[in-house]
Amino acid sequence: MSFSEFDLIKKYFSDHASREDVVIGVGDDAAVLNVPTGQQLVVTTDTLIEGVHFPTETSAENIGHKSLAVSLSDLAAMGAEPAWATLSLAIPVYDEAWLTAFSHGFLGLAQKYNVSLVGGDTVRGPLSITVQLHGFVPEGKAIRRDGARGGDLIYVTGTPGDAGLALAGLQNRVNLDPVSLKRLRQRLDSPTPRVETGLALRGLASACIDISDGLLADLGHITAKSGIGADIMLEQLPLSTDTARYVANSGDWDMVLVSGDDYELCFTASENDKDKVEALGCTCIGRITGEKGIRCLQRDGSFYESGRTGFDHFAV
Amino acid sequence: MSFSEFDLIKKYFSDHASREDVVIGVGDDAAVLNVPTGQQLVVTTDTLIEGVHFPTETSAENIGHKSLAVSLSDLAAMGAEPAWATLSLAIPVYDEAWLTAFSHGFLGLAQKYNVSLVGGDTVRGPLSITVQLHGFVPEGKAIRRDGARGGDLIYVTGTPGDAGLALAGLQNRVNLDPVSLKRLRQRLDSPTPRVETGLALRGLASACIDISDGLLADLGHITAKSGIGADIMLEQLPLSTDTARYVANSGDWDMVLVSGDDYELCFTASENDKDKVEALGCTCIGRITGEKGIRCLQRDGSFYESGRTGFDHFAV
Repeated sequence: MSFSEFDLIKKYFSDHASREDVVIGVGDDAAVLNVPTGQQLVVTTDTLIEGVHFPTETSAENIGHKSLAVSLSDLAAMGAEPAWATLSLAIPVYDEAWLTAFSHGFLGLAQKYNVSLVGGDTVRGPLSITVQLHGFVPEGKAIRRDGARGGDLIYVTGTPGDAGLALAGLQNRVNLDPVSLKRLRQRLDSPTPRVETGLALRGLASACIDISDGLLADLGHITAKSGIGADIMLEQLPLSTDTARYVANSGDWDMVLVSGDDYELCFTASENDKDKVEALGCTCIGRITGEKGIRCLQRDGSFYESGRTGFDHFAV
Repeated sequence: MSFSEFDLIKKYFSDHASREDVVIGVGDDAAVLNVPTGQQLVVTTDTLIEGVHFPTETSAENIGHKSLAVSLSDLAAMGAEPAWATLSLAIPVYDEAWLTAFSHGFLGLAQKYNVSLVGGDTVRGPLSITVQLHGFVPEGKAIRRDGARGGDLIYVTGTPGDAGLALAGLQNRVNLDPVSLKRLRQRLDSPTPRVETGLALRGLASACIDISDGLLADLGHITAKSGIGADIMLEQLPLSTDTARYVANSGDWDMVLVSGDDYELCFTASENDKDKVEALGCTCIGRITGEKGIRCLQRDGSFYESGRTGFDHFAV
């Protein structure tokens, strides 16, 4: 069966109300959009490939959700308000049920955050999804990676490590009971982008990043860009019941520090704003230091040495 | 060899001056950009897949060029001025020579049109390239597909059919002498986006599209969206020497009418502006009619019937 990009996008993605700032949406050579006065445009792009960014057995609805969630997470890390998406979808075969479920996952999340799909492209090829997301920040208010200062506290949203543990369970690297696996898979397959928290952190966070490559790696981007270091208190890391049990049994903190795909935010803020930040439900996990490199401190004051990535990797 | 998106984009794509309106470019969670006051944002996205959008034997430099050219062509069709690109690159293996040549082709064309690469993502997977391109038009000045009126003249840029003939030659469907094939391949592998013409057509063209799917199919989008029809005069079609010789020998006008990948513009304009449009080097190929459907007239006044796509396909 042949299918054209125009018809596919129209069929599966157009029962979808457009924002008022969309002058021309899907169906011309390009979209035409009105950026509000006084706002800067914020743009991110991410590609998800089957078997790399999601396990092959992931449901189409979750793939649709996740492909937008990872971009929403990037905008959240900038403190930006999401607005418009484009979608480039490569699919191996035309599968009506798959496309319906995918668009349901994608558009459900789009609607939640008032995102309009303004352009797209579908091609035949190995399954791969590229989403580009546009949003706004008031001029000069974007939260960058390079603003952390010595003495700032370090925070995370949610409970990092769950997605990595779910993947380890799926790949039989870790033995999980079915109830835990099901709960953890929800975190891997259908991550919650921290859009509201990102918006609330404007003017509050000194630096922010989303955790896609692992807490140490992503915090390492902040410390490298800001020219500082960090001390993480392992005991302060907020863990889900499932992940806490796994770490207690295995001593494997790397599951929390090194595994990716959580799409939580990691950010820094002045100690003066501690109450405001904690009111957002974020957890303090450590402090920015003047010395380069990231150290992970255990309860007894000794340093935890990551087994999966060298310490030096995160130094500047 | 492992490679991270950040390092790859930085290594191959950052020896590249940024425009002044780029506040944050590659290297944060998202780019932050200033859209000029009074301008609307124009956004297009295209995915190119090996074996579908370019023959497997295409050089890396030409793939880099073409992946940006097809998006520049979409902006040209809107009358938009290009500004910022993002690039999502899936590559099966880390190949330094390939990446160097690809980035050379991509950035060479970017520089020509003052386009800054502001974001990117590289993943391991079957070769596929998604480019998103942003540009501007003054408010209300975008050239749409739906503005053609009865009596308007129809124009094209360049010499359509060359890319299709090159592909037919490469696939041994048509016998071409080596000199012709080499000349035609240039048109297939390294198309020239008609950016300057698109800008000059603001306020002049009543409707415009770029020819990616074939002249009849793409003109069909204009007639369908505008609710009108068209008469094409086959003898007026501007042909390159190679394509003219092929059509004269074979009688196969479909090579010009139906094959895609030319990335020329097809547009309509009032007869009153004929001199202005012809001064841009564009060729009049027919006229918009009140009757729906597209008719192709031969020199003797008879209708040419396309063999590869039914006539009805292009009716509304």
